[in-house]
This record gives sequence, C-alpha cells and structure tokens, in this order.
Amino acid sequence: MPQVTTQVSTQATTQSTPIDFWFSVGSLYTYLTVMRIDRVEDAADVSFRWRPFSVRALMAESGATAPNPRKLAYAWRDVERRAAMYLCDFDKRPPFPIKNFDLANRIAVVGAAEGWCADYVRATYSRWFGLGEEAGSEPNVSESLKEIGQDPARVIALAQAEETGRAYEAATEEARRLGIFGVPTFVTRGEIFWGDDRLEDALRWHAAGTLRR
Amino acid sequence: MPQVTTQVSTQATTQSTPIDFWFSVGSLYTYLTVMRIDRVEDAADVSFRWRPFSVRALMAESGATAPNPRKLAYAWRDVERRAAMYLCDFDKRPPFPIKNFDLANRIAVVGAAEGWCADYVRATYSRWFGLGEEAGSEPNVSESLKEIGQDPARVIALAQAEETGRAYEAATEEARRLGIFGVPTFVTRGEIFWGDDRLEDALRWHAAGTLRR
Repeated sequence: MPQVTTQVSTQATTQSTPIDFWFSVGSLYTYLTVMRIDRVEDAADVSFRWRPFSVRALMAESGATAPNPRKLAYAWRDVERRAAMYLCDFDKRPPFPIKNFDLANRIAVVGAAEGWCADYVRATYSRWFGLGEEAGSEPNVSESLKEIGQDPARVIALAQAEETGRAYEAATEEARRLGIFGVPTFVTRGEIFWGDDRLEDALRWHAAGTLRR
Repeated sequence: MPQVTTQVSTQATTQSTPIDFWFSVGSLYTYLTVMRIDRVEDAADVSFRWRPFSVRALMAESGATAPNPRKLAYAWRDVERRAAMYLCDFDKRPPFPIKNFDLANRIAVVGAAEGWCADYVRATYSRWFGLGEEAGSEPNVSESLKEIGQDPARVIALAQAEETGRAYEAATEEARRLGIFGVPTFVTRGEIFWGDDRLEDALRWHAAGTLRR
C-alpha cells in the first residue's frame, strides 16, 4: 500500500519538526507544490505535514471577489511556464474553478487522519491537470482513490460524515488563526510563507530563522 | 552627474534588447526590485528599460479593492524578510499608501525622457523606506531630485505639464495593452512576468525563451 510506504519514509528522514503545508484541492498554484514537494523533501531533508482546509471559506470572509480576467490569464501562463521549469505535466488548461470543492477537500481531511493524504492529493491533481478530469468530480474522485488502494464508497461516505465536517472546520479555523489567506502556504517557526514561489524561503527559514544568506 | 554615468554604463554592457521593467513609485514590492536591479544587471549582463506608468489606473479599472488586512500584513512581513535576503534597508514600515502617487510617477516619466529615471526612483525609494519620508511628498521629492543633480522647481513644473500627463497616459495605455495588472512587471519576448519574485524567471526567459533548465 503506497500510503504506508510514504508515511514510513517521511518519518525516517525527519530530523526536526515538519513544515506545515496548508492547501486546498482546487487551487491552481498548489498544483506546482504538490508535484514537486517530494523532491524538495528528499533534497532538503525536511518533512511536510499536509494540512487540508477550506481556503474558499477564508477568501469569502475577506470579501475577495473573482480574480480579474487579466490576472487569471496571467496565472495560467505563469503556472504553465513554471510547470515546465519543474518538469511537471501541463498538457492543457484543466476545468477551473472546480465545482465540488468541499468534497475534494473533505476527502483530503480523511486522508490526513488515515495517512494517505499526500497520495490522494497527488493522484487527484495528476488526473486534473494531466487528463483534464475535474478534481472533486467523477471519475477523478473514484479513480484517484482506487489508484492509491482506497475504497471510494467507504471514503466518500466518511468524507461526507459529520465528524469529517468538524475536522475540516477545525483545520480552517486553525488556518484563520495563523493569518492564512491563500494557498499554498507554508508555516514554520510561527511565520507564514504564501505561494509555491515561497517554498524555498520557507525551507531557509525553517533551517536558519532568516533569509539572509 | 550620476545619471550620465548610469546611462553610459548601461549602454556599454548591453548585449541585446533590454527587458522592460514596468513599475509605479508607491508599490511596496517594487522597492525590492529597485534596490537590487543594478546588481542583477551586472551579474546577468542584461539591461532594463525603466517604464513608469499608473498601476493605480489599471487596478481601478479592474475593480480591485483595497487588499484585505491579512494579506497586507503578510506583504509587509514578506518584504521585510526578503529585504534582508537582498541586503536592502528596511528599518521601519514607511507611510503607505502614498498620497501623491501621480506626482511621484510623473516625475519618473520626466526622468525617463531625460535619462535619470533610475537614479530618481532609487533615491526616492531609499528615502521612503530608509528614512520614512513618503515618496511623492516633501521633503522626499526635492531632496531626491537634488541628490541626483536635478533642480526640483524645474522638474516639478515639468512633471505637472500637459505633455508629461500625455506621456504618462500613453505609458499606462501601453501597459494595459500588454495585459499588465500589477507591479513590478518585467516584459521580454512578448511575455509578462509579474512580481519581484519573477525577476529571475524573466532573466531566464530573456536568455532562452523557456524556464526549463
């Protein structure tokens, strides 16, 4: 079972406390992080704790509106260029925004509790960006879960259960308290680093408590 | 006269077409670029063409509202951390937003026509972030101009003249056509790169037309 392997290797290489990786499935830029974070983990000898929550809830509270069309067009192109830089697939622009945002993320919450969150998120993003199958919808959800050895019926029922809703809200409340407003966000030593492009800053801060070289 | 020195050295090291550096005085993140761009120019053997325009006009058109307080608080901390990384001063959080945005930028437009734009922008940002003197207001404006060998009375009158207003609007219209929505933005080979944190991407694209290593 791949999720067990992942857990064991993460624990074996961890020399210190993990960096918290806060994200929501459905975020465009989170794709870049999800696809490269294992390489980063190997190269920097750090571990990440995957923290799914609802960035949509926090954005709604802050009165955020839909991104302006120029900015969104730019974001797609920026991700496309950077996916090439990180050698991630980017064959076509996938469906966006995703319809079943909460289901996609409640499944990640179940995965975090059971130890297969990273595997699910990688699988669902790969299908979303690689095959154009929308995350949170079928066939993406069931195929991603089957791919990582999980039973879709069991997991989807659990994702919709009240206890998962409470865990999802608790994670979102924790993100709110930390001052998070977007994803991906990395948290280490009480500081937040927003954006896939701040992952290297987070690593340096985690190691040294400063960005000064 | 420092502006003449700058112009000559820029032309001597330019091996190719310049990268356009679009900015507005008053932007927080533009501080980082302004303070490190000469080092980048030397290290990468490229030149930049400084293109002042009104990012406020474009943001107003796109219905942008004031940034949410969490995001703004984060931005200050992010700039503070990155200023340390780039060894730029950041003694205290300067007055923000600036009141005389258009005057600050119309002076930059005059400087672009006369060859001392970069010197003025560096001087005004240094005083703004280093001494807490608001850009676009006194004493910052006059002291920055005197520091670079320009007569404040002459330049301020010219900045307020109709011809400068037309050049400022024409630059803003050009930025609009390019799809620019924020600053700093770098443009090379018909692609836009938004943010001080995309300066390295712009350099790589300028050299190779790809970010893939």
